[in-house]
Amino acid sequence: MNKFIDLRSDTVTNQPDFMINAMVNAEVGDDVYNDDPTVKKLEELASDILGKESALFVPSGTFGNQLCLFTHCPRGSEVILGDSCHIVAHEVGASSVIAGVQLRTIDSSTGELSPEAIEKKLRVGYDIHMPETSLICLENAHSNGNVIPVESMKKTYELAKEHNLPVHLDGARIFNAAIALNTDVKELTKYCDSVMVCLSKGLCAPFGSIIAGDKSFIDVARKKRKLMGGGLRQVGYFAAAGIVALNEMRARLIEDHDNAKLLATELSKIPQIEVDFNRLQINMVFFKFKDLSINTQDLIKYFFDSNIKINDVEGGEMRFVTHYWVTKEDILKVCSSLKEFLNSK
Amino acid sequence: MNKFIDLRSDTVTNQPDFMINAMVNAEVGDDVYNDDPTVKKLEELASDILGKESALFVPSGTFGNQLCLFTHCPRGSEVILGDSCHIVAHEVGASSVIAGVQLRTIDSSTGELSPEAIEKKLRVGYDIHMPETSLICLENAHSNGNVIPVESMKKTYELAKEHNLPVHLDGARIFNAAIALNTDVKELTKYCDSVMVCLSKGLCAPFGSIIAGDKSFIDVARKKRKLMGGGLRQVGYFAAAGIVALNEMRARLIEDHDNAKLLATELSKIPQIEVDFNRLQINMVFFKFKDLSINTQDLIKYFFDSNIKINDVEGGEMRFVTHYWVTKEDILKVCSSLKEFLNSK
Amino acid sequence: MNKFIDLRSDTVTNQPDFMINAMVNAEVGDDVYNDDPTVKKLEELASDILGKESALFVPSGTFGNQLCLFTHCPRGSEVILGDSCHIVAHEVGASSVIAGVQLRTIDSSTGELSPEAIEKKLRVGYDIHMPETSLICLENAHSNGNVIPVESMKKTYELAKEHNLPVHLDGARIFNAAIALNTDVKELTKYCDSVMVCLSKGLCAPFGSIIAGDKSFIDVARKKRKLMGGGLRQVGYFAAAGIVALNEMRARLIEDHDNAKLLATELSKIPQIEVDFNRLQINMVFFKFKDLSINTQDLIKYFFDSNIKINDVEGGEMRFVTHYWVTKEDILKVCSSLKEFLNSK
Amino acid sequence: MNKFIDLRSDTVTNQPDFMINAMVNAEVGDDVYNDDPTVKKLEELASDILGKESALFVPSGTFGNQLCLFTHCPRGSEVILGDSCHIVAHEVGASSVIAGVQLRTIDSSTGELSPEAIEKKLRVGYDIHMPETSLICLENAHSNGNVIPVESMKKTYELAKEHNLPVHLDGARIFNAAIALNTDVKELTKYCDSVMVCLSKGLCAPFGSIIAGDKSFIDVARKKRKLMGGGLRQVGYFAAAGIVALNEMRARLIEDHDNAKLLATELSKIPQIEVDFNRLQINMVFFKFKDLSINTQDLIKYFFDSNIKINDVEGGEMRFVTHYWVTKEDILKVCSSLKEFLNSK
Repeated sequence: MNKFIDLRSDTVTNQPDFMINAMVNAEVGDDVYNDDPTVKKLEELASDILGKESALFVPSGTFGNQLCLFTHCPRGSEVILGDSCHIVAHEVGASSVIAGVQLRTIDSSTGELSPEAIEKKLRVGYDIHMPETSLICLENAHSNGNVIPVESMKKTYELAKEHNLPVHLDGARIFNAAIALNTDVKELTKYCDSVMVCLSKGLCAPFGSIIAGDKSFIDVARKKRKLMGGGLRQVGYFAAAGIVALNEMRARLIEDHDNAKLLATELSKIPQIEVDFNRLQINMVFFKFKDLSINTQDLIKYFFDSNIKINDVEGGEMRFVTHYWVTKEDILKVCSSLKEFLNSK
Repeated sequence: MNKFIDLRSDTVTNQPDFMINAMVNAEVGDDVYNDDPTVKKLEELASDILGKESALFVPSGTFGNQLCLFTHCPRGSEVILGDSCHIVAHEVGASSVIAGVQLRTIDSSTGELSPEAIEKKLRVGYDIHMPETSLICLENAHSNGNVIPVESMKKTYELAKEHNLPVHLDGARIFNAAIALNTDVKELTKYCDSVMVCLSKGLCAPFGSIIAGDKSFIDVARKKRKLMGGGLRQVGYFAAAGIVALNEMRARLIEDHDNAKLLATELSKIPQIEVDFNRLQINMVFFKFKDLSINTQDLIKYFFDSNIKINDVEGGEMRFVTHYWVTKEDILKVCSSLKEFLNSK
Repeated sequence: MNKFIDLRSDTVTNQPDFMINAMVNAEVGDDVYNDDPTVKKLEELASDILGKESALFVPSGTFGNQLCLFTHCPRGSEVILGDSCHIVAHEVGASSVIAGVQLRTIDSSTGELSPEAIEKKLRVGYDIHMPETSLICLENAHSNGNVIPVESMKKTYELAKEHNLPVHLDGARIFNAAIALNTDVKELTKYCDSVMVCLSKGLCAPFGSIIAGDKSFIDVARKKRKLMGGGLRQVGYFAAAGIVALNEMRARLIEDHDNAKLLATELSKIPQIEVDFNRLQINMVFFKFKDLSINTQDLIKYFFDSNIKINDVEGGEMRFVTHYWVTKEDILKVCSSLKEFLNSK
Repeated sequence: MNKFIDLRSDTVTNQPDFMINAMVNAEVGDDVYNDDPTVKKLEELASDILGKESALFVPSGTFGNQLCLFTHCPRGSEVILGDSCHIVAHEVGASSVIAGVQLRTIDSSTGELSPEAIEKKLRVGYDIHMPETSLICLENAHSNGNVIPVESMKKTYELAKEHNLPVHLDGARIFNAAIALNTDVKELTKYCDSVMVCLSKGLCAPFGSIIAGDKSFIDVARKKRKLMGGGLRQVGYFAAAGIVALNEMRARLIEDHDNAKLLATELSKIPQIEVDFNRLQINMVFFKFKDLSINTQDLIKYFFDSNIKINDVEGGEMRFVTHYWVTKEDILKVCSSLKEFLNSK
């Protein structure tokens, strides 16, 4: 089988052999009966790393975010969050089905929510016409390539606390954010009441996420996880992969960031391409073709024939994502292949 | 009992004697059994005036808007609308409970939705990550005092049709809009698939609204109205008031608009006051006090003692609303009373 | 216009002149602003009669029942109630939409719930697989013609209290029940935490219902009423009718019960008819035709031509309902007309 | 570590080495991108075995059942099913949250639904007061130990088709049912439109279930699976276990059934015990203690100290479940241990 260079996302990461090895040798049990020792170990490790009292394994990032909304928010209440964040953009409208909440969005290209914008949307105190704000959500790193600085998270958190509101952090790529900000992840998670982190993506676990928060919060979430169909049985194999992900894969995310910078630099040397250097903070490179007539379907095909997988343009932009299976050599190959394609037109 | 000058809203309008007279003499029946002749007459009259195939009486504007969302939109789908509109701002988050939809908002201070902004939010075609847009909502007149021009409604409607999407019009004050735009209401409603209009407010019926649209739409809405608890019995008395409202109260709305302009002009003569003349299109006057230290609670009390009722400041602004029971003399009295208050400080 | 004898339901009752008179002369205001004095008077009167701290006007019985479920029950919890009761049978599945609860039904032909059957369905205490019971509902009088004895209500209530559960009483016809049981209505309502009573039906108000309960319960319900679209404006006209209904129409319900007994006796004299005397406790008569080949559509038409309105057979049974507008003479006319029809076959 | 004899459920089954081996060697990919070849292979195999056009991997049985309801049923519609079935009893009330449907239950101790009982609950055709039936659910084998005969499933299916209704089969233990009925599983699944089968439980996969049905049904379910948070990434490891489960573990379920019969026979020799032989059709044994004063908490502890795990009494009954890891020797040990306990009292 040909190996592909897969730049579509970091969700495509297959598992390294040492991770598969850990999976095979996992001690497992029925986790609905609280009998899986490896899941327990993972949950303890995660709560420790994230600085929270308790943690819970969930099948996916969407599952974890929606479970947190379902647990925090009374039905019919309002959640303040950025308009381009994953919960709004890529979770199939689940918040209106499962939690049954109203999303109240703030324009934010960087993921940061300005305190003024939040204040404008906040609805606190009794008013017979208004739903009440029940939660503020942040996403860090934001899937548009930005990270939110510690100071900004702190401001949002403090504002929330002034109004007795919880903050949920969509930390699907929180470890990328911590590395980009050169800080311990706890410095970020201390400014939220619940956090969801993905073990797949850059950390290379096969799937699954963790939510963490207070014990009382996680206790309620555990039963709601069952309602949502996320109570699994001998899931310790996965948890073993998750433990490897947390212990051995976090530090190396910096390589993906470095590779993204290399990719950006190389791409910017191609005259037909305009790289967005403002959003080059994690493992993602966003760029545009100056010539709008370029047929990206042709490019996808051309790349595929050269064993390179990419996603199509979205909102006028291309996104290339680096990860464990993308090397410096791969990046140079991608760039030279792209040049060939553009010059052949 | 002292008569109050009530500027809080046009919802406070009591019924003129000739309307009460029509109520008393109404022929009624059990409307759940389709037996109330006056309700039928009202629904026919309303569908005729609004240029729609069918119409349905509902208990309130919120009820009507939410019933239309519930009827148009598959659960979990997305509705595009302005961030400051009534459905988002003042309907208690009902859309996330009853219809179970995700609201996708566009910043709009005037109620108009720019085609570019809509295009950016539209989600059409299958994508496994995304909810699908199922509806676009407009509000005309907008409760911030603006009206949307015919041409703008037309553009929104045409864009919706390009994507096979329905348009719902929150026309709580559609007759104010028609008068402000100097056009027949049908010129506005032809750019929507469903419309909700209020019979209370400026038209002075005691309560109740109408939704109108295709017969097939109204047939489905009729059963969902029952689910929502809005199937009423001998409601013909109120329908009789509604008929008077539609037949005899629409034309006189121009007086309320003229009175609002008079009020704005008089207020603007007071040095401490800054009137927003850009939003003076219907029966509402928005203004600010230049001196932010003015205690509006004191003003409310001072006014109350002078038989004037007003609402408190919201978002830094005062709103005074004119209607059937506010005369030119009342306006002059309000302004002189306000001057006295300000000068006594 | 011909006067019809309308036996379809007691919801068809038009308003007597003295009730219309009270409506015309009502003092009204904007009830969303808490400004309608007549609504306040009605709510006080109702809470007094029902022996509850607070009461709230709602547009319909379905609205009131569903609002009580929405206020009592966390979403996803379970409600225990009789399988044939109105909430299950005739409220369009609203409980799964508005409150979002699971209905857990007990077979009950009389409306009574046996303590053993309740115990079997109760789910109390934490179990990760199970929803928790959040409410028990009774319906008295039951719309199948039965009333629940005081002692039975007491038992259900005491069982509920053992498990810290609230009881909701669908008392659409609670005044019929009180009269049939020859007791004060408070003797019934003391065995529930919330009650919904209809002012239309036998009491002849044009529409609308009352819910009553603790002040804290009604406070929450008031805002949820707005969410459901039931916040109305100058609704004092109706409230005035409601006050007449409560003050002047309750005692006379005994006439409807007597007339139902007369109707049952007269019908039972017709050889082709079998009356169910076990369910002859309020204003409803249930009977069957011994000869199943009788075409009830023909009968409906025949009756209509004789100025009599009836509903079609449901579950093999006919139901005739007596009320304010059905006199002893009407009953004799109906019976002789029915004999003619049967003999003409 | 001591090996436990675990009789609590067949969900506790750990994975045999040959299954773990298949997991390790699985070829995987990102299944949200449709890139996991092993998941595809599993879905094809499952649809082939179940005689359906398409199949979809889901994280759990509850997830699969609820996803099928969510896909079949319009919100607010009604589902007819047995009162003791898993969806009603053990899925945390999820149907009222996710699908938003009303459950309409039929008393059924065996899992069979009598056509008469169904007919009584069916609501077809338009009635403004009634939700419409949208689905009938069966559970085979029923988790109370019974199986539904082919002929009975056929009758339910034919009745459903007369009314154009789909049938969903909760087949968590469908392969146990097929073996108990000595028939091919397709003879059962041909009487349903959708089916959910578990790969864990008796088949020993670590977790996960399959739903199967028409391609158009599965296409819609795939997107709703994402909404519910069940779109997983490199889940092919588990799919590999699922393939082994389907190919190599089905036939041996007969051993579990034989062991259950042995266990029942041995238990029935103990004088203090009364075994329910009417519900001995699959791998479950239900029994009672004749002496109600036996402290089951003591028994659980006594067993635990003897390396035996059991669940506590539920509804007055004990349930012991046999599976891959329970041998004939284990059964004899359990019985002799139980005798010792009882005699020590």
